[in-house]
Parts: sequence; C-alpha cells; structure tokens
Amino acid sequence: MTGEEQVYRTSLGVSTAETISLMGQDLAADFIGEVGFGELSYRLITLRTPTPSQARLFDAVLVALADHGFTPTAIAARLTYLSAPESLQGALASGLLGGGSRFLGVSEDTGRFIAEALSERDQPTTPEGWDELANAAISRRRATGQLVPGLGHHLHKSGDPRVPRLIALAREERVYGPHLAFFEAMGRVAPEVAGRRLPLNGAGCCGAVLLDIGIPQALLRGTVLLARAAGLLGHIAEEIRFPVAGQVFAHVEGNALYIDPAAE
Amino acid sequence: MTGEEQVYRTSLGVSTAETISLMGQDLAADFIGEVGFGELSYRLITLRTPTPSQARLFDAVLVALADHGFTPTAIAARLTYLSAPESLQGALASGLLGGGSRFLGVSEDTGRFIAEALSERDQPTTPEGWDELANAAISRRRATGQLVPGLGHHLHKSGDPRVPRLIALAREERVYGPHLAFFEAMGRVAPEVAGRRLPLNGAGCCGAVLLDIGIPQALLRGTVLLARAAGLLGHIAEEIRFPVAGQVFAHVEGNALYIDPAAE
Amino acid sequence: MTGEEQVYRTSLGVSTAETISLMGQDLAADFIGEVGFGELSYRLITLRTPTPSQARLFDAVLVALADHGFTPTAIAARLTYLSAPESLQGALASGLLGGGSRFLGVSEDTGRFIAEALSERDQPTTPEGWDELANAAISRRRATGQLVPGLGHHLHKSGDPRVPRLIALAREERVYGPHLAFFEAMGRVAPEVAGRRLPLNGAGCCGAVLLDIGIPQALLRGTVLLARAAGLLGHIAEEIRFPVAGQVFAHVEGNALYIDPAAE
Amino acid sequence: MTGEEQVYRTSLGVSTAETISLMGQDLAADFIGEVGFGELSYRLITLRTPTPSQARLFDAVLVALADHGFTPTAIAARLTYLSAPESLQGALASGLLGGGSRFLGVSEDTGRFIAEALSERDQPTTPEGWDELANAAISRRRATGQLVPGLGHHLHKSGDPRVPRLIALAREERVYGPHLAFFEAMGRVAPEVAGRRLPLNGAGCCGAVLLDIGIPQALLRGTVLLARAAGLLGHIAEEIRFPVAGQVFAHVEGNALYIDPAAE
Repeated sequence: MTGEEQVYRTSLGVSTAETISLMGQDLAADFIGEVGFGELSYRLITLRTPTPSQARLFDAVLVALADHGFTPTAIAARLTYLSAPESLQGALASGLLGGGSRFLGVSEDTGRFIAEALSERDQPTTPEGWDELANAAISRRRATGQLVPGLGHHLHKSGDPRVPRLIALAREERVYGPHLAFFEAMGRVAPEVAGRRLPLNGAGCCGAVLLDIGIPQALLRGTVLLARAAGLLGHIAEEIRFPVAGQVFAHVEGNALYIDPAAE
Repeated sequence: MTGEEQVYRTSLGVSTAETISLMGQDLAADFIGEVGFGELSYRLITLRTPTPSQARLFDAVLVALADHGFTPTAIAARLTYLSAPESLQGALASGLLGGGSRFLGVSEDTGRFIAEALSERDQPTTPEGWDELANAAISRRRATGQLVPGLGHHLHKSGDPRVPRLIALAREERVYGPHLAFFEAMGRVAPEVAGRRLPLNGAGCCGAVLLDIGIPQALLRGTVLLARAAGLLGHIAEEIRFPVAGQVFAHVEGNALYIDPAAE
Repeated sequence: MTGEEQVYRTSLGVSTAETISLMGQDLAADFIGEVGFGELSYRLITLRTPTPSQARLFDAVLVALADHGFTPTAIAARLTYLSAPESLQGALASGLLGGGSRFLGVSEDTGRFIAEALSERDQPTTPEGWDELANAAISRRRATGQLVPGLGHHLHKSGDPRVPRLIALAREERVYGPHLAFFEAMGRVAPEVAGRRLPLNGAGCCGAVLLDIGIPQALLRGTVLLARAAGLLGHIAEEIRFPVAGQVFAHVEGNALYIDPAAE
Repeated sequence: MTGEEQVYRTSLGVSTAETISLMGQDLAADFIGEVGFGELSYRLITLRTPTPSQARLFDAVLVALADHGFTPTAIAARLTYLSAPESLQGALASGLLGGGSRFLGVSEDTGRFIAEALSERDQPTTPEGWDELANAAISRRRATGQLVPGLGHHLHKSGDPRVPRLIALAREERVYGPHLAFFEAMGRVAPEVAGRRLPLNGAGCCGAVLLDIGIPQALLRGTVLLARAAGLLGHIAEEIRFPVAGQVFAHVEGNALYIDPAAE
C-alpha cells in the first residue's frame, strides 16, 4: 500500500501540543465547567447542541435508566469484581455485556417499533387517529407472534411510575413529540387489542422520549448502556463497601445438584 | 444450605409493584428531572449528595476525560463494532477494557500516589511545606525506578490545557483541597527533582480533583471509565455515520509482513 | 423466599473435599492425560463422547478457524493489550467481542441456513436432488435480498483451500453427512443461481462439518469463539514479543483529519 | 506521516488468494487434520512445535483447568447469557473477565513465584537442596505478609486430586523439570514453615507444569483462560438446555434488603 495516503476522518477529539479540541471547540475553555456530563454525552452522540429542554429530558432518561437494583447485569458485574478486583474495567464491561435483547434492549426495541409504525403513514392529527395507528401496529405485531415492546412489566403490573413522570416532563419542556404520542396511544389501546391490561413500561417510554429529543435510533441502546454504566459503578462501589458476590457464589455452589445427562 | 435465610444488602435500587426507590428516595419524584446525570453518578458512587460545587467539578472531570480522539480504546471499540454491529454493548465493552494501567489508569495512579504521600505526614501550611512534601515523595518514587504519575505527557510537552482550567474551577468553587495543593507542588518541584521540565498532565489533575471532592480512591478508575463510556459512544456513533474501522483493518492487513520465527 | 429450597442443576463439574468430577466422571483419573483438549471441549458442549472420527473433525475445525492473521478482532485484542497489559483477560475478551455477525458469525449463519433448508423436506438421495434443494433454498434467500452465507470470500475468490481439505477429511473419517452434502451442492449450483462464480468459504464449511458431527446449532458460534481464543492468544503472545499495536495507534492518530460536522 | 512505509510484522496467519499459511506452514495441508487443537494452541503461543510429551502435558493442563462447576465466572457468563442470548460472545467474554487475581490467577502467581525463586540460585541437586530453596522462598514471602501461591485450597483441604495425577504424568512423559521439583518441595516444607498442613493446589501445579514444558510466564494466565473458555462454553450450552440463571437472579432480587446508608 506504499504511496497511498491514509486519512481517518473524525469530528470528535483532536489535539496539538498546545490545544485539545472536541467537536471543533476548545475543550478547556468551552466544555470544562461549562456543560454538564449529560449534555456533553448528547453532543458526542449527535454532534448537535441540545436545547436546554432536550438536555433536561436526556438527563432525565439517563437518570431513569441508571439502576434497577439486583439485575442480572449488576450481579454479573459484582461476580466479576469478586474474581478480578484489580481490573475494575472488567467488572464494568462484564455488566454492560448483558445489555442485549432481554433486559436493556427494551428501549431500543420500542423505539424501532414506534419509528417503523410512524414511517408508514402521515402523522395523525387527532387522538383517535393515534389510537388507530397504534392499534394497527400492535395488531400486526401480535399477528407475527412477537411481543409488543414497551408494554408490560414483570413487577409494575398496574403502572411503571417512571412513565407519567417522563411524559409530564416532556410536556412541561415542550419536547413531547410524535414518538411519545404514539407511545401513549399504545397504552390506551393495549387493553382492547391485547385482551388484558398491559401497562406501559419505563424502558419503552425512555425509547420514545429519546427519539423525540433527537437521539438516532441506532444509538438508543448505547444511551441505555451509558446510563447503566453509572448504575454498575454504583454496584461495584457498594460491592467494595459491603460485598455480596461471595454470598451469591456460595449459595449457588452450595446448592448445586448433579444431574446425570443420561437421565435427563 | 437448607433453612438458611439469605439476604443481599443494598442501598441502591429497590422496587415494589408501585414504587421504584433509589438510595432511599423515590426515583420518579426525587430524581427524574430533578438531578443531572453527573450528579446522580456521584451519588451512586458515594451515597452522598454533592454540594453544587462538588457536582460542578465532578461534571468538569467527566467532561475533561470523555474523549481524546483516536486512542487505542476508541480504535478497538470501532473495530469491534465493525465485526459485530448488532452488539453495540460488545463494542463499548471492548473499548472500556483498555481502561488499564497505560492510558486510563493515570488518574488512579496519581490519586494513589498523592493519597499515600499525604497519609504519611501532617498537611503542610506553607507553599514551601507542600514543595518539600512533593519533593520527598517524588524522590522516593524515582529512587525505585518507577515513573511518577501525573507528570509528563507525550503530546502536551509545555503544558496540558486542562490543568489550569480545572485548578481555576476548583478555586472558584472553593473545593480546592490538599490533593490539588500537593499536585500543584509536584508541578513546581518537578524540574528540579527530575532534572527537566515535566508538565502536569490532565489525567493526573483529574485524580487530584476527584479526591478533593470526595470520590473514594478505589473508584477513581471507575469514574474515568464512566467518562470514557460517553466518548466511546461518540466514536461508535461516528463509526455508524462515516466508518473508518474497515480502513484501519485494510491498512494493517495489507501491510502485514511475515517474519520467520526462526530468523528472529 | 424463606423456606423455599433452591437447587441449581448441572451435569458439569462437581467437587467434594476428596474428589473433582466432571460430567459424572473422575477428572483426575478419567480425563487428565486421557483425553485431548479438543475432545474435552466437544464433551463439555454436547455431554456426549465423540467417536474418534468426530473428535478428529472437531479438532480439524478448531484448527481451521483459529487464526486468520490481522483480523479486526486480532487488532482490537492487541490495542487493548497495549492499553491494559496487566489484564490479559481484557485483551482476550476484547478480541472475542468481535465474534458477531460480520466475520465470525459465518459458520453459524451457514449452519442455520442449511439446517432450515434440510428441515423442510426429506433428504435427497441423488446429487440432482441435492442440487435442486440447494437451488431452491438459495433462490428463496436471494429473493429476500439477503446474502447467502457460506458463499463468497473477499480474498479466496477462486476457492478457499480449507474447503476441499475439510471435505476430504470428513469423507475419510466417514462423518460426511447431509449438511456437507447440502453445502457441496450449494457450491455446484451457485454459478447458475447467482450468475457468477462464488466459491464456498471455509467458515461456512466448518458450520456444515460441525452440524454433521453433532454440535448443536446454538453452539456453532461458541465453537468458533473457542477456536479464535487460541488464535487471539497467539496474537497477544506475539504482541508481547514484538509489539505492533503502538504502531497502529500512532498511524491512526497521526493521520486523523478533523471534519467539521456542519460541513458534512 | 506521508511517505512513511508501514509494515506490521507477524509470524502467524498470512493469506494470499490461493493459500492460507500459519506460522510459515500451509494451514490446509500441514495443520487441518494433522494436529490437535491443544497442540496448535501450544504452537500459536510459543511458535515452537511441542514434543509429543509436551503436547500431552499441555492438553492435560487445559483439561485440568477447564471447569470447576458453578464458579463466579460461570455464574456471570450464565447471567449475561440470560440478558443477551443473541450475543453468545458477550456471555463468554463476561465469564473470561473474571480471569483475574482471585481465582484464575493462581497458576500465574505460582509460576511467577517459582520462577523468581529459581532465578536467584543454582538449581539444587538433592531433595534437601530443593527443600531448603523452597523453605527460604516461602519464608521470605510470608515475611511480607502475602499468601504463598500454590498452597491451600478452600475445599480440597487434604489434597487436590489433580496434583498427584499431573505429577505422575509429567514423570511418565519425562517432562518433570525444575518448576515441578520446586513445587513438590513447597508441599513437603509447607507444614513446617507455615505451621499447619497446606495442600498443594491444582491451579498452582498447572503453573509449574506449564513452565516445565516451555510456556512463557507471561502466557500462563492466557493458557488458563483458554482452558476456561471451553468450560464456559459448557456452562452456556447447559444454560441453553436447562437454564438456572433466571433462578439465581430471582433468588438475589427476591432477597434484597434495603440498608439505609446513614445507618451503616
């Protein structure tokens, strides 16, 4: 490849001996002490400056998703910390690796579901129009035998407390947009189309909010992972203060039961 | 282990059917929309509410450390995204796994170096006292043949622009404490004790700031990783917009040179 | 959950103070020195003892997939080692995380494609029957606009040298089964159905072989990852002997070109 | 960096359109079907061809270390699989990330301890000489307050069954060397120098064997990780067949107890 000139394009960080710039601005003068971490994250993801309202909702979503107690990912991070306490990065990575389809993927799945439904038609102008649109999308989805993302929660069966708070905040800040409108319609039509009460869940609501404030669909999961990174650090900090991972390990090892594979 | 009652203690998230609480407060009412993501992260790590000044400095450190362009970790994350774009969590984890001794560990190493030096003596009350303390610690460290963390930068040889900004901010917010005082003294005595100009680096300064605002030493690296998670998301978002990882791969593969091991 | 008795079922390792058993046999007496690592891996994955022929083909596949030089995953592992040399596990994990859809997933994708095609009809009894079956499956796949896994290679355009070797070995050991028969038929009909010569690739062939020797479809990717773990260790060992990751980093960082996002 | 010619040196895999070579030999003709996976791994790590005896012991060590039932790393891998079943690579990586100081690091720690002790003196020629050397090294180590790696096991208090098997195999294959001689001496002098019976553990024995058969010290942990990759695949395969991770999650979440941090 002699003679070929390579360049690697980036709009993020570039340094010289005297300066560090980030997205074309001066890191020290324009960012440090001037913007919050949530806002910086929004800008790194989108290369756009959020309005104060968008920034507030972005922070609200990150806060809503940061921790949910002893999730499988939090337990995995703690077990990894137990085994390799000298590599905190390994414990954090181990926890983030559970950020896939079953738990942390709900925001992304809901966002994609809504975005696809909205891409097919002009936006409704009446609540009835939104209901009809949601009803059609949910019905099509259910016809394929798949779950409808954003509906249902294993614990908060009569309603996830994050949902009304996020929606009120979005209205208050005037960033309530078509994705939340569709999401609310999903909640209204769910009992009819699903034959039972299915509450809107917080993770799905976060997906709708993120789309309404301009986060690209491909980065919804990434945003959830950033939020969860803070929660996992909380679990690792707690594991340092009063460990429980050894107790989990002893419990599982102590209750192992050998099963002869031939007898299965 | 029959009959034994297990409990797993936590001060983080706990949910019931109706409520989600976090650190003993109501997630929806007390956190969402009320605290920024940086502040929430501080609280998850420390279980304490930061003062507004501490919160501002914590955000400032996260912002200062979020991205440095094409670092080895950013390139690794992009290559992993190239190979497995369906698992964004894997790309993020892959980047974070480089958060070890050589690059992202500087904040932690500097923090530990300062904390150990401070633990040995009463705090000085004069600049000369700080200089003497820093001089002694650096000399001892250099006598063991080890690098002194916090001093020197491969690029910013005449000064890292983040350092004066962070120190000014700490003074402005009145959170300038003994760790920064020691760190500044390191900068003053370095030319004498090292025989050449060695600028204070930004990563080391962040370690000193974090200790002065109450982040435990064991979580310094974790804080750096949280900051870097945002930067890595920025790189992944950029890789989605205009990819360069394939170009890196083609460059390395295309310039591979087979070396006969017997001839080494 | 008081009073509930938990047991965790396993057919793998169980220890007492005096013994270590694995899959119901004595680790020290029955496994150590008695079975090779490839065979043990086969047994851990399937809980069945392979025939000597199956074991030989399993080893052959692991050997065929272990290394391909400077792949994106190998480069990522080396960059992570550069950043955190004290955590070799992080470098290995970083490399394995690229084991997704684009590169290492080909064996799994091909295996699934073949298994689905075979599940729809009785197995053919003549070469023409196999060709017809392969033709139909490929045509259906292409009609959806998706790539046909197992066909094509960015480098080995006139044939991947691993394919004839693996097929000959499977015939020699009499483990050549329906998945390889289908795979060979794919190669025969590809020019006609695709309108151009598309060689069978080695990764796809490995997927067919693994199914023919009894590896469950859900573990095809896992088998590839095991193979690649050995190759990645080879890269890390080489990085220790003569490092190149710093050179990759310097090349990319040194050729970064800032792009104003507004100008994109 | 224009005009500079980059080459990336490697002795591993290099491909052309027609050939794939590995360590200077033809992958298809010289490796596939010709060498086992354990032997190939040895060669990738060392760039040397093992003697049949070295290859047998290398396989024996990999087999001895592959699985130990419900370890923290196995549980972490299963929990990650539960959360992200579509990314098997994430579950495997999550488990490997626990390959640090507390559990999987014992082989490396023991190997380093032995190698350092041997580097200080000429090798003894009598059992008494070995005992004296081991006694001195253990005494020095204990004087620093550190654990002596290779001694003690939380379960196999009267002896780890892998140890006599591996030693017998090394003698039988005539690869018993100075590292095992030192290791056996550690076992003889331990009761005297430690004041109580401390059995030699299997992980430490594996470290000694690996050094005696030519694995570089820097790759001991890597070898353990390769072994464990097979065991973790076994756990993931089992989790697919009959899951337990959901049960672990439910147990921990269901027994969470909120602790007011102010009350700690």
